[in-house]
Amino acid sequence: MEFVTGLIQPASKEISELMAPEMDGAQVVVNGAVHTVRDMGEVAFVVLRKREGLLQCVFEEGVTDFPLSKIREGATLEAKGVVRREERAPNGIEVRLQEVTLLSAPADTMPIPIGKWKLNTSLETKLALRPIALRNVRERAKFKIQEGLVRGFRDYLFGQQFTEIHTPKITPKGAEGGANIFKLEYFHKKAELAQSPQLYKQMMVGVYDRVFEVAPVFRAEKHNTKRHLNEYTSMDFEMGYIQNFEDIMGMETGFLQYTMDLLQREYARELKILNVTLPKTDRIPQVRFDEAKRLVSEKYNRPIRNPHDLEPEEETLISRYFQEEYGADFVFVTHYPSKKRPFYAMDDPSDPSVTLSFDLLFNGMEITTGGQRIHDYEMLLDKMKMRGMTTEGMESYLMIFKYGMPPHGGLGIGLERLTMKLLGEENVRETTLFPRDLSRLEP
Amino acid sequence: MEFVTGLIQPASKEISELMAPEMDGAQVVVNGAVHTVRDMGEVAFVVLRKREGLLQCVFEEGVTDFPLSKIREGATLEAKGVVRREERAPNGIEVRLQEVTLLSAPADTMPIPIGKWKLNTSLETKLALRPIALRNVRERAKFKIQEGLVRGFRDYLFGQQFTEIHTPKITPKGAEGGANIFKLEYFHKKAELAQSPQLYKQMMVGVYDRVFEVAPVFRAEKHNTKRHLNEYTSMDFEMGYIQNFEDIMGMETGFLQYTMDLLQREYARELKILNVTLPKTDRIPQVRFDEAKRLVSEKYNRPIRNPHDLEPEEETLISRYFQEEYGADFVFVTHYPSKKRPFYAMDDPSDPSVTLSFDLLFNGMEITTGGQRIHDYEMLLDKMKMRGMTTEGMESYLMIFKYGMPPHGGLGIGLERLTMKLLGEENVRETTLFPRDLSRLEP
Repeated sequence: MEFVTGLIQPASKEISELMAPEMDGAQVVVNGAVHTVRDMGEVAFVVLRKREGLLQCVFEEGVTDFPLSKIREGATLEAKGVVRREERAPNGIEVRLQEVTLLSAPADTMPIPIGKWKLNTSLETKLALRPIALRNVRERAKFKIQEGLVRGFRDYLFGQQFTEIHTPKITPKGAEGGANIFKLEYFHKKAELAQSPQLYKQMMVGVYDRVFEVAPVFRAEKHNTKRHLNEYTSMDFEMGYIQNFEDIMGMETGFLQYTMDLLQREYARELKILNVTLPKTDRIPQVRFDEAKRLVSEKYNRPIRNPHDLEPEEETLISRYFQEEYGADFVFVTHYPSKKRPFYAMDDPSDPSVTLSFDLLFNGMEITTGGQRIHDYEMLLDKMKMRGMTTEGMESYLMIFKYGMPPHGGLGIGLERLTMKLLGEENVRETTLFPRDLSRLEP
Repeated sequence: MEFVTGLIQPASKEISELMAPEMDGAQVVVNGAVHTVRDMGEVAFVVLRKREGLLQCVFEEGVTDFPLSKIREGATLEAKGVVRREERAPNGIEVRLQEVTLLSAPADTMPIPIGKWKLNTSLETKLALRPIALRNVRERAKFKIQEGLVRGFRDYLFGQQFTEIHTPKITPKGAEGGANIFKLEYFHKKAELAQSPQLYKQMMVGVYDRVFEVAPVFRAEKHNTKRHLNEYTSMDFEMGYIQNFEDIMGMETGFLQYTMDLLQREYARELKILNVTLPKTDRIPQVRFDEAKRLVSEKYNRPIRNPHDLEPEEETLISRYFQEEYGADFVFVTHYPSKKRPFYAMDDPSDPSVTLSFDLLFNGMEITTGGQRIHDYEMLLDKMKMRGMTTEGMESYLMIFKYGMPPHGGLGIGLERLTMKLLGEENVRETTLFPRDLSRLEP
């Protein structure tokens, strides 16, 4: 009988292994995709794309036992060669090729020059050719940083005794209400795709006190903007036994501080590739909604048109204000009007026209909505009644309040938007692997 | 201006903090949900449910400054009291209550006795009352272990230089083919919910070599069994530059070994609550599909009815065989017939009627399907043609092969099934927070 006993260590070496000082002069096996080929006559530089970066390999006439003509961009190969220190090469090393074995050959030549430092193609072209455009070193660095943001979120919250949950994305009709819902048929019942894990994460606060989920959410919004997606990844948490909603802002600030450190430590390569300067997170101003409106109205001479909502331009101006006055990249705007918040938002007892809630703006854009929720059964029923809502179909949700819930609150962070602002991109599609928008359902 | 400067440390203490030796005799603040109340006359035991477990608090007439009648099951409270070592209490400590503040009160009494050690209610009732049934200590322990499985998967793969990805769940019509698809309308286009991230993770192998995703998948299967769900969490990985498909089985075995260690180390409390013995993962037998059928047919005197597929009973018998003969909890069954595998599966060059693929059985049930994929453009087109498939709508997927892909393969693991078998449960709904099945769309 044959047995699988664990990880099979590959013979080939990765870049970080090749960079070890003792590897200088060693004969090694490497593999990778041919990223670029630069033929200089007697020698040629064959740059391999590997998961950690680019590896320069040197093809020498008479030394490398393989026809250079067969080493085409897009081919993948395994090679034997000798490692040499070479200051001018990426990561300070190169491999002088001895033997080459083709693992696969492309059927056609690349339609875009992914080997260039910057892909000077339109966003439209990049998205149409997404599966190969992402092979560009700068393109893929964006999504490594995105990975770091998710890791930071989870690791920080695990450290704060949160429990990770997985809640259903197919939900009964009318669960959370609102427009912008994708509908589907579920075995002859009307179902919807979850716009957020809101009701489920509140249910789970009754079980674990503190929970989080990183998962897709779906919004059938009909406007095509640079900041909206119809499917995106939401990083949600919800926590019980809060003193007030400042506990939630504190937790988010803690996450941001932890995660910027993590990026600095473990994603320095990608930050450098993209020339990113990390934002300051040591102290984040918090300002009331009405006060924020007043401040920008006065400073930038702009009349307040709608006292109940922030226009995108106002979000930009609020961020600009706090950047100019306090050097702040982030700002918490608190006490949003009740009218503009969902039924489960806790109203401020000292002024029920506003809620104990907040948005976090990052360089002019909302990346988080959060706040304290109602935890009292009767208060929730009253608010639903006041809004003309029915309790039908809400029994499971209402159950948790009926049998007891602690004071609690939470938030949701749009992963693609956070990445976008961190990288200074202008369009959220730049930081979405495979965007879904009004006109885009593929790839 | 006010600033948020980071995490706000709560005044109240968690169980692990209270257990520190120096806390004996200290006055502390604690909070929690009233799990049970046992009134003994002069004293009463008020057990609080907290995220780390249960905390016994002692109410004493004349000492505790609060009416006991108001401390009802389901209420949440904050209390001041003194920590005392008490061997008979959970975790060896109790808190003698001095002051109590109610944070919230339930509107009704619990419809099921969640304070009991075992919830002796039917699965049907547990699922109908899921949001509160999960508050039972044993119920919630199941999903902590599930969390550990996901953490193990991610942490192990990060250690192996995998990149985490997030791929769309709304996909164009016909992307992966097959029956059992949930359909929806996407802005006047026909769309589907992803049955798996298969095509996307293959695309991303061309970008990062090694990728993984933990995300929901959707299957409109019309049979109601103990092992099927219509929405579940799939743990997927895909890796390039494999020598053969044994690299994939090696990676999965490595994950299992790592994760059982992690559970032992960090989820010992939950393993004990559920009385779980972890399976052996040091060596996992691997057996060919046809050989496995032959072995159980001979040993258990059972004729082979269908040589091309495994019946559920055969899966059970194969597991039984390897349990009896080798003491093995897991078994890899390899070389599944081509007919039963998807078009992207790599056929065995030495026998094209079978594929370089495998299933992993765990105590009688398939928890993983994986294998090597076709990476050659022409070979893939040929196979699609042979199966009568159209390339229409597949352009983005085919693009990656056209412009070059390394040899690669991967797998998907059903999280709820893995949890189910690990915990020895008989129904996958027991290990799904909010199951979706033929008749169940709520909660």
